[in-house]
Amino acid sequence: MAMSANVPTDARFSFSGLVERGGGSDIHRDGWGIAFYRGRGVQEFRDPEPSVNSRVAALVKAQPIKSTVVISHIRQANVGEVCLENTHPFVRELWGRYWVFAHNGQLRGVRRQLPLGRFKPVGSTDSEWAFCWLLGQLESAFERWPRSPRKLGTFIADCARQLDQLGVANFLLSDGRALYAHCSTRLHWLTRRAPFGKARLKDVELVVDFSRETTPNDVVSVIATEPLTVDERWTQMAPGSSAMALAGAVSSLD
Amino acid sequence: MAMSANVPTDARFSFSGLVERGGGSDIHRDGWGIAFYRGRGVQEFRDPEPSVNSRVAALVKAQPIKSTVVISHIRQANVGEVCLENTHPFVRELWGRYWVFAHNGQLRGVRRQLPLGRFKPVGSTDSEWAFCWLLGQLESAFERWPRSPRKLGTFIADCARQLDQLGVANFLLSDGRALYAHCSTRLHWLTRRAPFGKARLKDVELVVDFSRETTPNDVVSVIATEPLTVDERWTQMAPGSSAMALAGAVSSLD
Repeated sequence: MAMSANVPTDARFSFSGLVERGGGSDIHRDGWGIAFYRGRGVQEFRDPEPSVNSRVAALVKAQPIKSTVVISHIRQANVGEVCLENTHPFVRELWGRYWVFAHNGQLRGVRRQLPLGRFKPVGSTDSEWAFCWLLGQLESAFERWPRSPRKLGTFIADCARQLDQLGVANFLLSDGRALYAHCSTRLHWLTRRAPFGKARLKDVELVVDFSRETTPNDVVSVIATEPLTVDERWTQMAPGSSAMALAGAVSSLD
Repeated sequence: MAMSANVPTDARFSFSGLVERGGGSDIHRDGWGIAFYRGRGVQEFRDPEPSVNSRVAALVKAQPIKSTVVISHIRQANVGEVCLENTHPFVRELWGRYWVFAHNGQLRGVRRQLPLGRFKPVGSTDSEWAFCWLLGQLESAFERWPRSPRKLGTFIADCARQLDQLGVANFLLSDGRALYAHCSTRLHWLTRRAPFGKARLKDVELVVDFSRETTPNDVVSVIATEPLTVDERWTQMAPGSSAMALAGAVSSLD
């Protein structure tokens, strides 16, 4: 799950739905993590415990953290054991920016097919390997942080198509400015803007009236594997497509 | 404050004393952070709020997280504004290991005197700049992660002496295996081992009987600017000296 907004926004509502999937309403029980960009910094919470049982997740649900970009992930381990270093999202610094990455899917032959630059995985997942490869690709393609989020996004979408050759590469990536999303198989997004209404979570009894939580100028987009709410219109991304969210607004990168 | 132990150990007792200094018994009120190594992974909690008021700090105090290396820091801002990206400890990956760094003191002229390699600061502190410089020095000195913690430590101590030329460089650094400490002006350490006794915190009413919390083989060292307890014998490090803690045991690097 990820969020992009034009003003610092509380992501607790969406996160509350997501954590239910961590051993509650779903099979994803092998750890979870969430990264909030605040300014140029990143505030992270992660736990190798299932999110429904996690006291850290309970804290995140209880505490309003306002952020313009959030990336969260609940893991169903397939490659790599259940441990902290294999818990998404992964974070690295490039060009004096923190980059955050979360992946759903399985990639085959990453060690053979994806040569690394200077970024090396700490854990044993195909996901972290792919993230390190992607940052290496970015570093060799651009001398410094590109001013244009779209230029960066087009390059990331090219890399994503290479990852698609190795398996399933649904991923979310951010440099704190834009949120980049690639859909190999399943990814949905939704933009909330005025006039705001109510929304009901799918996985847990919780309704939020966004008109009471927002100002008329707020624009907030949420991207998730499956729709998180039952009464809003989510857009399903086409397999093989990439998109970018900047200040809450989603645009295609294809 | 940092801890090194030969078995995963709960650092809450020492952390409880430290957080009182974040706006409670001390002037360090400009954010705080703590990083726990668990396996090769790092679990971080950080907050730009003063630690005495922080709900995240309350969670860390309430929850047992067992770790072999912990680095924690409470900031009194002098260079760089109070914000998340300027909050210690800083984390970077090098050679497939996470490195964690916290610094007390002020360094002058880092931008002129400390040329960076590929690691770039995200925030605006002299501390993060020095950390990025140090990692760049390590990367150019060694092709891969040195097998010998002492070899690495000797090199780090050399770098620390260069930092001493720029001001005050009390710092704590770890790669998850060893804990490296450098004392420019003030740093104290203490090793707890069998027979374990009781200890009373200096900053808050809290007594722990370590004989009930440990096994006879446990060895745990704590390093902090000022002694955290009143009834144990802390060793003051000499200005300009460096030390290393490996599996709880402290040795000099001079």
